[in-house]
Amino acid sequence: MAKKLLVLAFALVIASAFLVDLGRRDIDAAGDGGTLIRDASMVITMDAKLGTLENTDVLIDGDTIAAVGRGLRASGAQVVDGRDKIIMPGFVDLHTHLWQSLIRGCATDKELNGWLDECVLPLQRSPMNSADAYAGGRLSALDSLSTGVTTVNDWPHAFNADFNRGDLRALVDSKQRFVFTYMGGKDPAISQEIRRVKKDVIDPNPLARLMIGTHPATGNYENTLASEKLAEELGVSLNVHLHESKTDPATGQMDALRRAGALRPGLLTGHTIHMTDAELDELAAHDVRVAHNPLSNMRLASGVARVPDMKTRNMKVGLGLDGGTNDTSDMFNNMRAAVGLQRALSKDPDRYPTPTDVLRMATLGGAEVLGLDKEIGSLTPGKKADLLVIDTQALNFAPKVDWPAQVVFNTQPANVQWVFVNGVALKKDGKIVGDTGRAIADAQAAADRVKTYLGR
Amino acid sequence: MAKKLLVLAFALVIASAFLVDLGRRDIDAAGDGGTLIRDASMVITMDAKLGTLENTDVLIDGDTIAAVGRGLRASGAQVVDGRDKIIMPGFVDLHTHLWQSLIRGCATDKELNGWLDECVLPLQRSPMNSADAYAGGRLSALDSLSTGVTTVNDWPHAFNADFNRGDLRALVDSKQRFVFTYMGGKDPAISQEIRRVKKDVIDPNPLARLMIGTHPATGNYENTLASEKLAEELGVSLNVHLHESKTDPATGQMDALRRAGALRPGLLTGHTIHMTDAELDELAAHDVRVAHNPLSNMRLASGVARVPDMKTRNMKVGLGLDGGTNDTSDMFNNMRAAVGLQRALSKDPDRYPTPTDVLRMATLGGAEVLGLDKEIGSLTPGKKADLLVIDTQALNFAPKVDWPAQVVFNTQPANVQWVFVNGVALKKDGKIVGDTGRAIADAQAAADRVKTYLGR
Repeated sequence: MAKKLLVLAFALVIASAFLVDLGRRDIDAAGDGGTLIRDASMVITMDAKLGTLENTDVLIDGDTIAAVGRGLRASGAQVVDGRDKIIMPGFVDLHTHLWQSLIRGCATDKELNGWLDECVLPLQRSPMNSADAYAGGRLSALDSLSTGVTTVNDWPHAFNADFNRGDLRALVDSKQRFVFTYMGGKDPAISQEIRRVKKDVIDPNPLARLMIGTHPATGNYENTLASEKLAEELGVSLNVHLHESKTDPATGQMDALRRAGALRPGLLTGHTIHMTDAELDELAAHDVRVAHNPLSNMRLASGVARVPDMKTRNMKVGLGLDGGTNDTSDMFNNMRAAVGLQRALSKDPDRYPTPTDVLRMATLGGAEVLGLDKEIGSLTPGKKADLLVIDTQALNFAPKVDWPAQVVFNTQPANVQWVFVNGVALKKDGKIVGDTGRAIADAQAAADRVKTYLGR
Repeated sequence: MAKKLLVLAFALVIASAFLVDLGRRDIDAAGDGGTLIRDASMVITMDAKLGTLENTDVLIDGDTIAAVGRGLRASGAQVVDGRDKIIMPGFVDLHTHLWQSLIRGCATDKELNGWLDECVLPLQRSPMNSADAYAGGRLSALDSLSTGVTTVNDWPHAFNADFNRGDLRALVDSKQRFVFTYMGGKDPAISQEIRRVKKDVIDPNPLARLMIGTHPATGNYENTLASEKLAEELGVSLNVHLHESKTDPATGQMDALRRAGALRPGLLTGHTIHMTDAELDELAAHDVRVAHNPLSNMRLASGVARVPDMKTRNMKVGLGLDGGTNDTSDMFNNMRAAVGLQRALSKDPDRYPTPTDVLRMATLGGAEVLGLDKEIGSLTPGKKADLLVIDTQALNFAPKVDWPAQVVFNTQPANVQWVFVNGVALKKDGKIVGDTGRAIADAQAAADRVKTYLGR
């Protein structure tokens, strides 16, 4: 009997060593879309306590990561073979303008201001409508899912309210988790529309969040102030472009933010390149966060953000793809660029971010920037099931040497086999769910209209 | 009658306007693997006279581009639907070490010297053999084809003669056009083996060329000199790494090349980063060529090559992927990096290379560097049929705005649908021809052996 107890105790110790879960051994995920990814060769959890696990199962129950461990069972759940696969948290894209897939390839010979003049600003006087916005947003959202982005912070340019509604509809239809950055302003009608959108569309949708966008500048102070006030009223964050081009500091962006009282925790500043030490100190002191967009910065000749100096100041920094201005939607490429730009410039391989750092920036770090790290960003049981599955048996990825490093340096979007958002598979076995052919055709029709608006 | 003649004359004018060929209207490509790509939406010929054409056919007859024009006919040829496709010349990868796919992800936290110490130099004392070389070379060659590289300059590290033979066999089996850079040295046995390889393997193979590799340095002068002498004897070029790491100039690389008389037309220098004005002048004066490897330079914290200053000096510069040290084999990513690195550093969008420039660097420019521009590098009728076909109807590529720019900024290797080398389709309808599963498995087995040699 004593021997039997010993064996039992030993078996329990072994079993518990292989199991990190919510305390349940057998989780019934039947009937509610539960998924068991069995025997994943590697699970990069991004959870500091769990670390990176091998030959491990991941159980998705409803919208939640129910368990990460070995030998999980779930009667009735769909089973995905995890062998030769890497599972990791979905990417958080902190800064993009989804509609801009309609102007891919536009003015690739210009820096920011020249590109804006040629490809964006003329559209403010155009009849861009919700169909255009939907077509561009739809194409980009599906494309962004394809590379493994599960949360996207999208900023349409608010050519008009109808345009914004089309963009928002594309986001909702994509089933991605999203932040909708609605451009604020001093016109009371805009504030009223934003309040309505928050109440009617954002708040009822568990995947949706709101931010208020504004372009801070001395010459745009009233709009900046009104946007900040509305953000405070609604309890959301402000989202701005900050010192992206070398010509930006002279426009008084920092001063406008300061005067409007916008330098507060949660403020999200995109790019944030041409910064003095004192300005970085000031952002850090107010827990202002940064969306770093290295591919966009390279395409638009914007410069190199001082990411290592932000890290020294313990600032929260994540990555953005800035669709349309960097053109590519390859988050692996974006991670490589974030690492490589700093290295090429400094000639120092220890320079922040390392490959380990950048994996965090693209996932949990991005979630922290958005204040969503309790919900997403790591494969912690209890968090929402936003994750991607990478097939390692590819010509560009194999063999297995140091897989987490290979995720940064070797992976291509085509290697992403499965993408789950909130427990729902939106890329399955290498194919995006949905009518991609129609999305492409609709985007072409919209791009043809846009061309006429741009006079090209 | 006069009216009929007028109509006929008019028809001939129209027909000739749509035809750029070898003077034949109906080319019989039957029986010899001829291929007609019909109605390609765009053909980026990279031929200055032909330019970029729309709705055009490309006819491959045997190993040759027989015609580029509209309304081509070829009885018995395989027909590929070119609608919604872009055809362009295959990429020339000027600098790589194919075997290094076996050490993908190795020491991604190190700069060049640390990486060499950890991942390469220990292998010189190891029993690396032809099976290892073949496995790594095979995986990389297939991967490189997948992104559209049709000519590769491969430099195995010559751990021993058997290793080199395995690598060379992988190149031959890949059916890619290749330059085999064989490491020379003062040991007469090495020179003898190189002479044998040239005579028995390289010269009989129309796809093969030879270069002699060496590591110029004050401390390696005898080997440098012997390599240069052998290159002269065999009428081939020398291939070297030059000032890649910031520690390289102090080793006397330039001086060793100078003393050995190696600074002569055709010398290929890889990286060539830490260069003074006078050194660049000297290279330019001797028509020395450069393989620029931006992704590798970013990964290894090597620095940023002075590519615009090379252009000012009319130097011939092309691109290399430097497999293993940059890890990715995505030539589109490499082109973006070549453009973006210079832009981010200079904050000037006109900085060389522009997207147009970099397309040339990756194709015709690379062919010029190798002295192969009479044979390949553009879709000029009469040249060898090395080309790739890009599917534009992809989430990451559509819609059509400025396709040549989109090739640089939007394309991913998965969009490459067809790759032809010397008229033979090596990627068909998005799939690499050959047993990719076996290549991956063999590479894993070899990588596992390499790990033991590295003591990891």
